[in-house]
Formats: sequence, structure tokens, C-alpha cells
Amino acid sequence: MTAKGELARRKIIKIATAIVNRKGFGATTIQEIISATGMQKGGIYFHFPDKDALGLAILEKARADFLLFLDSALSGDSPGACLENFFRLAVEKHLAAGFIGGCIFGNTAIEFSDTDSRFAAIIERVFDEWIELIRRTVSAAQDAGQVRTDIPATELALHIVATIEGGIMLSRLKKNEESMKKCLDTVRTFLHMKTV
Amino acid sequence: MTAKGELARRKIIKIATAIVNRKGFGATTIQEIISATGMQKGGIYFHFPDKDALGLAILEKARADFLLFLDSALSGDSPGACLENFFRLAVEKHLAAGFIGGCIFGNTAIEFSDTDSRFAAIIERVFDEWIELIRRTVSAAQDAGQVRTDIPATELALHIVATIEGGIMLSRLKKNEESMKKCLDTVRTFLHMKTV
Repeated sequence: MTAKGELARRKIIKIATAIVNRKGFGATTIQEIISATGMQKGGIYFHFPDKDALGLAILEKARADFLLFLDSALSGDSPGACLENFFRLAVEKHLAAGFIGGCIFGNTAIEFSDTDSRFAAIIERVFDEWIELIRRTVSAAQDAGQVRTDIPATELALHIVATIEGGIMLSRLKKNEESMKKCLDTVRTFLHMKTV
Repeated sequence: MTAKGELARRKIIKIATAIVNRKGFGATTIQEIISATGMQKGGIYFHFPDKDALGLAILEKARADFLLFLDSALSGDSPGACLENFFRLAVEKHLAAGFIGGCIFGNTAIEFSDTDSRFAAIIERVFDEWIELIRRTVSAAQDAGQVRTDIPATELALHIVATIEGGIMLSRLKKNEESMKKCLDTVRTFLHMKTV
């Protein structure tokens, strides 16, 4: 693809992602994406033969972005500090968006778990990757004496991700960070987190 | 309304709820509901002037059913036993449905938090009621020495509900109870639950 074509493709994905994240895939029309991008219909279809192809491209891009976010968020002077940094940045990320859109993976899990196995498979992979990255950090924090060791890291990681998803859902519903922030404060206490 | 009319209304709501819970409101058509009920189009519109009216009726009925479920699930010989019973029945309820449909309130929160304030308002009320019922039970369990007291009951209740929603989301995605069950096992440990 030419550099110009690649730029157009990225622009479509970026604009469509914002619409889909707010309304869901089902409620988003190609016409809406055409209007929002200011491109011709043919320009959209040149890059994506149908709405599903665009939907899958949106998810793959969101996955790549999220893995980059996790990589940079899970950083710090110790495993406990990495977790702490991740908790803080996860809230900040959604706060910056005004709790509009929420988590595209949680949203898509809810929209397609029962109705589209291709979408559900991508989302399942993202959650598995996310839980595994958290598990590794929790496990290292356990070894460093910064997180309780009486519950396996796998269970703690699953719990952290589930709680974040529920917290985002409630904060997005209420349009303030309180629910998500409180859930993560409670997680910190539950984990016996010592980051210093 | 006649008894026959009331029965027809209930039948429409029941059948439409199952479809909506699986696919979401946006992706469900009135035509689909007509086909599934085997009723005439006029019969549906006699009870519900439009899809939104049916949608709101579905949520109000789901809310009433859920409050009944909570009332019966949060029962036991002690506050701790009530919580234990609720955790067990919450998993059983979704397991019985094969993790199809998930939680209609979580689903609707995701679908409409950013796009329909009427639907979002009902859902916000359901979550507030749910968290308050759990808070009361947690608070009583704290007084009875069955749950840790170093975190306020309000925060614990919020955490429990957020974790359940995230657990349902993951279990529905993977079509097995493991995620939801493990999340609740971890919650039990976190709460220092003593039910005997």
C-alpha cells in the first residue's frame, strides 16, 4: 500500500474506533463512518470490503495499542511499583476520555460473546494476554514480598482484570471516576501492596 | 387490561428479554420478536407503541425479577451465610443459563451508558439498589465478626458488584463458570469470610 493509502486506512480506523467504542459495532453504520471521515464511500470500501472487515481491523489495532499501553504502564522500580503505576494509569486513561467509550474489549465481549465467534476469539485472546502480563508482574511482586502470597498470582491477576472491567462499567455509567478508583483502592488493600 | 391482555404482554416481555439479553437492544428487531412470539405485528404494537417502550418494559421487569432474586439469595442463618448463599446462587444462575446472555444490567450499561440516558438511568438505579443491599448485608456481617472491618462496607459492596460484573463478562466470553467462580473465591478470601 502507498504511504497515502496507509494514512487513509489509519484515519478510517481511528475515527471508526471512536464511534464504535461509544455506540457499539451493531449500532454504527458505514454511512456514519463515511460522514465522520469526510471520505468517499469508495475510499472506505477500497480499504475494508465490508463492516466486519473494518470491525476486525479496529479490534486488531486496539489490541496492539493496548499491549503498548500495558508495556509502558507496567513499569517502575519494582514489580509492586509497576502494578501501582498500572492501576494509576488505567484510571487516568479513562478519566482523560471522560469515561466515554469505556473499554473496547469489555464492550465487544458483551456485544459479541453470544453472537460472533470471530470477534469473541480476538477479545478472548486480548483478555488472556492482559491477565498473563498482570500475572507475571503479580508473581514477581510476590517474590519481592510486595504482594500477599497466600493466593496464587493467576487468581489475583484474574481478579484484578475482572474488577477493573466492572469498575470501568460502573464509572462509565455514572460518568465519574469514583467507582473505578474505589475498586482499585480496595484491590490495593486486598493485595497487601507494599510498593516502597 | 384484561387477564388475556396481561398474559400476552408478559409473554412478549419474556421472549423479547431472552433475545435482547443475547444480542443487545440495538441488534434486536421488532420483526424478530414478532416471529419468536408467533403473534401479529398489531398485537405487539397494541402493548408497546415502539421498540423503546418495549425495551424500557423489559428492563423494569428484569429489575423487579432481580430484586426478588436478591431478596431470596441474600438469606441464611447469619449475615455471612447470606453473602455466601448469594455468591453461590449468582454463579448457579448464570451456569444454569450456560453463560448465555450474561447480566442484562451490565449489558445495557455497556450498550447505552453513552447514548441513551433513559436506559442508563434505570440501570444506574438497579446498580445502586444492588450495591446498597450488599452493603447492608456486609455491614451486618462486619458487626457479627464474619467479614473484615478495616474497609468500609460501602467499598466492599462496590467491589463485590464490580467483580461479579467483570467475572460474568469473562465467563460469558469463555463460556464456562471458571472465571466468575474464581473471582468469587478470591473475594471470599479477601473479605476474611467466616460463615460458621
